[in-house]
Order: sequence, then structure tokens, then C-alpha cells
Amino acid sequence: MRILITGAAGMVGRKLAHRLMADRKVGGREISALDLHDVVPFDARSCPSMHITVHVGDLAEEGAAAALVAPKPDLIFHLAGIVSGEAESDLALGYRVNLDGSRALFDAIREAGNCPRVVFTSSIAVFGGPYPDIIPDDFHTVPLTSYGTQKLMSEALLTDYTRRGFMDGIGLRLPTICVRPGKPNKAASGFFSNIIREPLAGHPAVLPVPRDVVHTHASPRSAVGFLMHAASIDGAKVGPRRNLTLPGVGVTVGEQIEALERIAGSDTVALIREQHDDAIWALVKNWPTRFEARRARELGFQAETSFDEIIRAHIEDELTDAAG
Amino acid sequence: MRILITGAAGMVGRKLAHRLMADRKVGGREISALDLHDVVPFDARSCPSMHITVHVGDLAEEGAAAALVAPKPDLIFHLAGIVSGEAESDLALGYRVNLDGSRALFDAIREAGNCPRVVFTSSIAVFGGPYPDIIPDDFHTVPLTSYGTQKLMSEALLTDYTRRGFMDGIGLRLPTICVRPGKPNKAASGFFSNIIREPLAGHPAVLPVPRDVVHTHASPRSAVGFLMHAASIDGAKVGPRRNLTLPGVGVTVGEQIEALERIAGSDTVALIREQHDDAIWALVKNWPTRFEARRARELGFQAETSFDEIIRAHIEDELTDAAG
Repeated sequence: MRILITGAAGMVGRKLAHRLMADRKVGGREISALDLHDVVPFDARSCPSMHITVHVGDLAEEGAAAALVAPKPDLIFHLAGIVSGEAESDLALGYRVNLDGSRALFDAIREAGNCPRVVFTSSIAVFGGPYPDIIPDDFHTVPLTSYGTQKLMSEALLTDYTRRGFMDGIGLRLPTICVRPGKPNKAASGFFSNIIREPLAGHPAVLPVPRDVVHTHASPRSAVGFLMHAASIDGAKVGPRRNLTLPGVGVTVGEQIEALERIAGSDTVALIREQHDDAIWALVKNWPTRFEARRARELGFQAETSFDEIIRAHIEDELTDAAG
Repeated sequence: MRILITGAAGMVGRKLAHRLMADRKVGGREISALDLHDVVPFDARSCPSMHITVHVGDLAEEGAAAALVAPKPDLIFHLAGIVSGEAESDLALGYRVNLDGSRALFDAIREAGNCPRVVFTSSIAVFGGPYPDIIPDDFHTVPLTSYGTQKLMSEALLTDYTRRGFMDGIGLRLPTICVRPGKPNKAASGFFSNIIREPLAGHPAVLPVPRDVVHTHASPRSAVGFLMHAASIDGAKVGPRRNLTLPGVGVTVGEQIEALERIAGSDTVALIREQHDDAIWALVKNWPTRFEARRARELGFQAETSFDEIIRAHIEDELTDAAG
């Protein structure tokens, strides 16, 4: 089978590409070719068993999406997008990349005519407060950011194009991915990862919000697991509601820190300094907290069950010699 | 104040324009100019107290929306759109008119920079089944038609552009407007009106669905009332959730017919012939039935309280000498 990944140079995109190269199969089918697309040039590993091609360009540009789907990939992971902070600070860029990019890709898929499985990374940012304590699957989506708006509009298009038989789309509303490796990006959610990753590396970290903030997390490993599961799931079982709110670990920031202390000790935890940040708090206080994610669980999507597990996944995947 | 209506040649657009010309005011402010826009040429009445201009063109065309909002209208009623049947049969046209048209208008408003009140006619087609018995305001929007998808995407854009201060938007999810005067349009919901309007005019009508189908209706008079109310309502009271599910009369088709019998007698009702239509039934069985519409009611939106009232409104507004 032939696979296309958009946004392949991002954190999740790279991990997904490596997983596909390691597995060599999706849902029992051999991968013959892997097309990796991003807006920035990037290095991809090579893989003896499959033909890897790197594409660089802007999805929303005339003809770019058509060229990408011309080889009629069987499976498309559409991860391309700019993050929430950037979509908020640059209105035109956000709509161009996150909405027009998705629309150009979906239209190109429609024109290619081979109805591939399309796995799209949406976000819990499609929700806006006030929320019930646990957000059910049928809760309305009224985003409070331009990023969430663009994700919601792309979700709607995916649902309609799937209903019409142009593609077999599945949208995944990812919880916050934690612990993010590497440097912080422009996401306001960065501190959820910083307060774990930095102390584990012996560096100080700032906690800009109160300890009783509740938030739902899944590891980068789970994120890749979600994508792989969505790639091979039976579309008929998903039904007409193609966008799924995924499970995760719902914890307070205080519980995150307690888990860190259990795993790495009090000296590590002492590296976290509380310093309130009004700008971050203004965003975070509107974020959703816990999700029921019942449909996704019933469809077999699995996340970690404790924040301890999330930290251990980070240590195994990023801080040991075999880390990729 | 200056007012723009898009889709002014449609049934609701014409009634709204006539109401504005009769009232000469909105929310206590004198109307000085009224711009009437539609894709088809149409005759507009003249009104001595205000400057009426008719514009004909395609909103999605480069520069068209900018020209319309160049005089910086204080209030915009955005009614333009193609109906559900047409949006389903012509994919490209539906997205162009119902999505790109709205986006072009909203972007032109953003660039004009005067932050007008924008009243947008959305639809209960943003919902898709299965439904609870009574659909609450926070029920998720997963449309089962391209029309509903396009309305949902426009709603999301309206919410985001309002949050960012580009406009002061209010989206109205209109229930089915019944009794529609004139000839049936391409909407599959046409029979809800046909079975009342045609017998009242002494003509036969076909009922293509079972009598126990439940559906929510409001009269054209109520539709205009909703628009007028939305034009002058306090935006701060609406809050960040800018799209409102409106109230209406939730009745079975059988109850519609009973109301007709009470008002016009059994000879009139005898003109209705039951003839099942699988194509219409396939659509209707997925339509929402009853709505809580609590927020809209609390904000002062009022519909009829019985189907008898809806029929009487039709008789008064369309079948008497003074009907406009």
C-alpha cells in the first residue's frame, strides 16, 4: 500500500513515519511507498523495504495537493497545520494553512477518485466552555480560538466528503500530547510538558497556572497508536459521525507533579517553580478538562490509564539509549 | 442607519425588506438606506423615507462582497444561499454559494472595519441523527447533508469573527418555515407547507411521509420576527456562543392536518392524498424533531405556540386582500 503523511516533519509526523518504517505494515497490508510532505525541508530516514519520497510545499497552493495525491495513496495521514498560538496571532495564515490546506487536500482526494482512508488530526480545541464536568461525545463544538474553528470546519468537510463517498475519513480530536520532547513550540499548553520534561533533564521549569487545573493528556506514543488504529479501523463501525473525541488521562497539574515525584523523587520536583502567567491562564481556564470519549473507547482507541504511565513512556521513548 | 440584505429576492428576504420599509426603524434607529442584494434580478418596492438600492451579483465573486459593504452598513442580514436539495445535487455550487459566499462577505466586513451587526440565517440542518426526543442547545452538530455542513462551517466562521471583533454576528438556526407561500422550491421539506397551502386554495396536495412524523415549524411572519429581534438584541447577552437554535411549534404531520381541519373543515382536509415517497422519506426520517431552544427563548425570540396559529398567520398574511 501507498501512504501519504502531510505535516510529516512535525513531532507526531516524524514518530508516525518511524513507526510505519519499523512496522512495514498497516492493518496487515505491506507498505510499498511512503510520501512525506511538509512545508519545511526535513531529513527523512531511509527504509530498505519501502520507497520513501520527501515533498516540500504549501498544501493550499494551486496544484500542490493534486500532485501529492496523484499516485492515489491508499491511506493519508493529514497532520499538517499550524499550532493554536500561531493561528491566533496570524489570522490569514491560520485560515490558509488549517482550513484552505485541508480543503485543497480533500478536494484533490475527491478528484483523484480512489476514496482513500484519511486520518485527520483534529483537536479538543473544537470545544469551548463552559463545560460539564465530563464532556460527553455529543457535546456541542463552539470553539473559542481560530485554531479550534479551523479544525471544526475541516472536521465538517471531512464528514461531508466521507458521506458522499469521496474519501473514508476519520477525524481524531487529540487530547494534549504530553510529554512533548524537544523544545517548547508556540502552543500555550507547553507548560504541561515543560514541568515534566525539564526537571527530568535536570533543568528548572515554570508552572504558570494553579495546581488544581484539570486537563486530559496522552503520550506521543499514544498519539501514534491512535493514528495507527484509525488507519485500519472498520469505517462502517464508525458510522456517519466521523470525528472522535479520544481518551486520555484526566489529571490536575498537582497530580502530574505527584506522579513525577513518585517516579523521579523530590529533588526533581523541586525544580518546578510556580510563577503565575495571566496570559496563559486566560487561555487555559477556558480549556476543556475531562472527556467521556465513550465512542472512541468502544472503537478500541486506547490511551494510558495514569499519568505515571505517561511519564514512563517519555523516559522509555526519549531518555534511554534506544530512544528514536 | 444603513442596512444590507443578501438573498433579498428570496421569500424571507422580500418579507423582511417590506417589514423594514413599513417599520422605517430597527431598534429605535431610523433606516436611511437599504441595500438589497441577490444573485437574480428582482423588483423592489420603493419607499419614500429611505434610499433603496438593488444589487445583482454573485457574493463569492472577487470584489463583489467588498463593493456591497463599502458603504459600511450598520446592520447586515445575510440570507443568501441555495437550498438543501440544490446543495446536495450540485456539490461545487453549494460550497461556492453557501460557504465561499459567506466567507467572502465576512472577510469583506472584516476589511471594512466597522464591526456591524450581522444576522445570519443558519438552519436546523446543522444537526444530524440519531437525536434525543428534545434536542438541547448543547447538542453536537453533525450534519447529514452538504447544506447543513455549509451552514455549520459558516456558523463557525461567524463565531470566530465575532470573537475577534470583526463583526457582531448572530446566527439563527431557523426551524422549517411553514406555511411557505407561492410555488414549492427544491427543498425536500416542501410538503409540510403544500399540505396546508394547496388545500386552503382548493387544490389537491400529496403527503409523502407517515402522519406520525414530528417536525418543528415557524411561520414566515415568525421568521421575519426572529430576524428583526436578532437585529437589535444586546450582543453581550448572547455571549460567545453566537448561533441560536430558535423555537417553533413541534407537531406531528397528523396534528398539522387536525389543525387544518379545525380551521378550514373536512372538505379541505380531504384534498390531502397520502402517497409515500421513498426519496423524501429517506431524507425526512433523518431530520430533527423537537428542540429545547431555551437560550433563544430566554433571549426573547418568540414563535407561534400552536399549529393553528401558524395556519391563521398564513391566511392573514397571504390569503386576505391586505396580504403583501
